[in-house]
Amino acid sequence: MSGKNTAAIAERQSRLLETLDEFGLDAVAVNAGPSLVYLTGLHFHLSERPVLGVFSAAGAHLVLPELESGKAAKAGFDLATFPYNEDPSSWQLAFDKALKAAGATSGKIGVEPTSLRFLELRFIEAATPKAEITSAADCLAELRVRKDAHEIAMMRDAVRMAEEAVEATVNNIRPGATEKEISSELVVQLLRAGSSPTLPFDPIVAAGPNSADPHAVPTTRKLRENEILLIDWGASNDGYFSDLTRLYAFGEPDEQSLQIAEIVAEANAAGRSAAEPGATAASIDRAAREVIEKSGFGKKFTHRTGHGLGLEVHEEPYIRADSDRVLEAGMTFTIEPGIYLAGTAGARIEDDMVITEDGAESLSSISRDLVIL
Amino acid sequence: MSGKNTAAIAERQSRLLETLDEFGLDAVAVNAGPSLVYLTGLHFHLSERPVLGVFSAAGAHLVLPELESGKAAKAGFDLATFPYNEDPSSWQLAFDKALKAAGATSGKIGVEPTSLRFLELRFIEAATPKAEITSAADCLAELRVRKDAHEIAMMRDAVRMAEEAVEATVNNIRPGATEKEISSELVVQLLRAGSSPTLPFDPIVAAGPNSADPHAVPTTRKLRENEILLIDWGASNDGYFSDLTRLYAFGEPDEQSLQIAEIVAEANAAGRSAAEPGATAASIDRAAREVIEKSGFGKKFTHRTGHGLGLEVHEEPYIRADSDRVLEAGMTFTIEPGIYLAGTAGARIEDDMVITEDGAESLSSISRDLVIL
Repeated sequence: MSGKNTAAIAERQSRLLETLDEFGLDAVAVNAGPSLVYLTGLHFHLSERPVLGVFSAAGAHLVLPELESGKAAKAGFDLATFPYNEDPSSWQLAFDKALKAAGATSGKIGVEPTSLRFLELRFIEAATPKAEITSAADCLAELRVRKDAHEIAMMRDAVRMAEEAVEATVNNIRPGATEKEISSELVVQLLRAGSSPTLPFDPIVAAGPNSADPHAVPTTRKLRENEILLIDWGASNDGYFSDLTRLYAFGEPDEQSLQIAEIVAEANAAGRSAAEPGATAASIDRAAREVIEKSGFGKKFTHRTGHGLGLEVHEEPYIRADSDRVLEAGMTFTIEPGIYLAGTAGARIEDDMVITEDGAESLSSISRDLVIL
Repeated sequence: MSGKNTAAIAERQSRLLETLDEFGLDAVAVNAGPSLVYLTGLHFHLSERPVLGVFSAAGAHLVLPELESGKAAKAGFDLATFPYNEDPSSWQLAFDKALKAAGATSGKIGVEPTSLRFLELRFIEAATPKAEITSAADCLAELRVRKDAHEIAMMRDAVRMAEEAVEATVNNIRPGATEKEISSELVVQLLRAGSSPTLPFDPIVAAGPNSADPHAVPTTRKLRENEILLIDWGASNDGYFSDLTRLYAFGEPDEQSLQIAEIVAEANAAGRSAAEPGATAASIDRAAREVIEKSGFGKKFTHRTGHGLGLEVHEEPYIRADSDRVLEAGMTFTIEPGIYLAGTAGARIEDDMVITEDGAESLSSISRDLVIL
C-alpha cells in the first residue's frame, strides 16, 4: 500500500497537524492498528512487542521492534525510527527517545481509547510524566471520517468481493447444510473473490428463529425449507472493509417472515434516500425507523440504523437517533434497519453508503428483496 | 464451549482466587479477549462498546452491552451482570456498580497490559479512585500456562486441521502460483479442515529470497522451481491455536538451501529432545541454538527459539536464552529455530509441543524434512 499511496499519506499527515491544532493537542500517539495504517501505510500486528507512532509538528516518529525495522525502511516518507531489541528492559528507552524527539514530553498527548493498550500507555506515561494523556478519538475520527479517492476505491472493491462471494455461496448450498457450514463456504468464497484473510468479522449466518438474534453466531442447526436465512458478512481489501446483510430462503417462508423482510427493505430504502450532504445522522436513522414504526414493529428494531465503515468495521459516523452529526461528501457508513421477533424470525437489510457531492451512493447493488433460492 | 466445559471453568475461577492471593492482587479486571474466554467460556468481540469481567473473592461480575445480555445468561455459572444501554453517558454507572459489587473499589486491581485498552482503563480508574491498577500479566500467565485436558484436546485438533490443510494445499499448487495465491488456497483448506475463520495469523508463504524474512508477508512474486517455499501457518479451534512451519520446493534447491533446511530440522529435533518437566526454557533454546551455532550460522538465527501457544499465539512460556522458567506438565509452546540468509534464502521448522508427566510430545507429526514436491 505504501508504494501506491505515498501522496495520500503525505496529505493525511499534513491534515493531522491542522486537526491536532483544532483539538488542542500537541501530539498523537497511536499503536499498531487502523490509525497507524492510515497515517503511515504500514501494517503492524498487535503483539506483546509494542509499536507506537508519535506524530507532532516535529514529524513522524516510530517505536518498533528491531525485527520489524525493514518495514519502516520502506515507508516512503520521512520517518524517525526508534527500534528496540528483544530485551524488554530496553524498551522504555526507545519510548523516551521517540517522545523527546517528537517534542511530546509535556503538553497534551492524544491516544485512541479503543486501541491503545495498558502496555503502551505505561511506557508513554513513564516517558512523559509532565504530559496530559487524553482521548484523541474525536481528533482521529475527524481526520479519518471523510474518505479520500484511494479509500473509496478500496471499499468499492471490498463490496464487490463480498457480493461475488455471497452469490457463489447461496448457489452452492441446500437445505440440510448447517449455519456453520454455510459460513465456512462463504469465507472460502470471500477469499476466492480476493478478500484478505483478516475479515471484518466472522460472517453471521442465522436461519429460522436464530435470525432473531442481531449478533447470532453460526450454529450446527441445519437450514430448513421455508425459513429466513439471514447473512451478514463482509470482505477485507488491504485493510478496508465491506459489511452487508441480505435475506434468503429455500421455498417461500411464512407470511410474517415475508412481511418483516419487506418492511426492512423499505426502511433501508428510506434511509438511503435520506442520505445526502447536509443531512444529519439522526435524520437517516429517523427515515429508516419511521417505516418500521408505522408497520407496528418499532419496538422490535432494537439497535441504531448504522455505523461508519472504513479501516474499522465500526467507526464514525454512527447513524443514531441522538446524533446531530452533519454528513459530508466522502463519509462512508452502513444503513441496516432490522426487525427481531424473538423465537420466530428476524430480518435486516444492510448497505454500504458513501456521501457524494450531490447525494449518496450505495456501494452495494445486489437485490435487497428476500431471495427465494 | 460453555456448555461442554462448565466444570473446567469452575476449576479455573477457583484457581484464580488462589493465584490472586499469591500475586497480592485483590481483583482482576479483564476486557474482551482470551483471558475472559478462559475464565467464563464466553466470547465477546472487541468493539467500541466495552466489556469487562471483574473477578474477586466476591465472585464473577460482568459489564456488558444490553444487546449481549443473552450470552451472559447462558454462562452456566454464577455471574453478576451489569448491562448498559446504547447511551455512552450511562456506561460509567455500570462500571461503578460492577467494581463495587466485586469489592474492588480499593486495593490492587490487576489488568492485562497487552489487552486492556485506554477505554476500559479510564472507566475503571473513575470507578476506583482509591485502587492501585497494576499489571496482572504474570498472575494470568501463571493461571493459564498449564493447559487442562480440554485445552490440550482443542490444540491437538487445531494441529490436525493445520496439517490436513497444508497437505491439501501443497498438492494443489505448481510453480507460477504467487505467494498470495498459495496463502489464499491454504486459508481455504484451513476452513475446509474445520478451522474457525479467525486464524491465529495470516499464513506466511515466502519463496526464494523472501523466505529470508522471518516476518514475510505474501507477495505477488511467483513461485519458481528449485527454490525454498517456507510456509508458517496455523488453525483456530474454538479460540485455541496451532502454529507450524514447514519447508517445500518444486525440484531440488541449491546446496546451501538444502543445507540450512537440514540444520534447522536438526536444531528443531534437538529442542524437542530437550523438552521435559524440570527443563528450563533456556535449556531448550540452548539445545536448538547450539546445533545452528556449530554449523557456523549462529548469527543468522536472529530470534528466540519459541513461544507459548494456546488461546493466544504468543503467550507464556517464551523459549528464550535468558528465561530460567522451569517447564511443567501441561505447558504448550513452539520450537522454531531458523536461519535467515538475507537476499538468498531462509529456513525454519516449527512444532507445537506439550510437556507431559514424563517428557514432551509434539502435537505435530508431518515430515520435518524439506519436502520436494
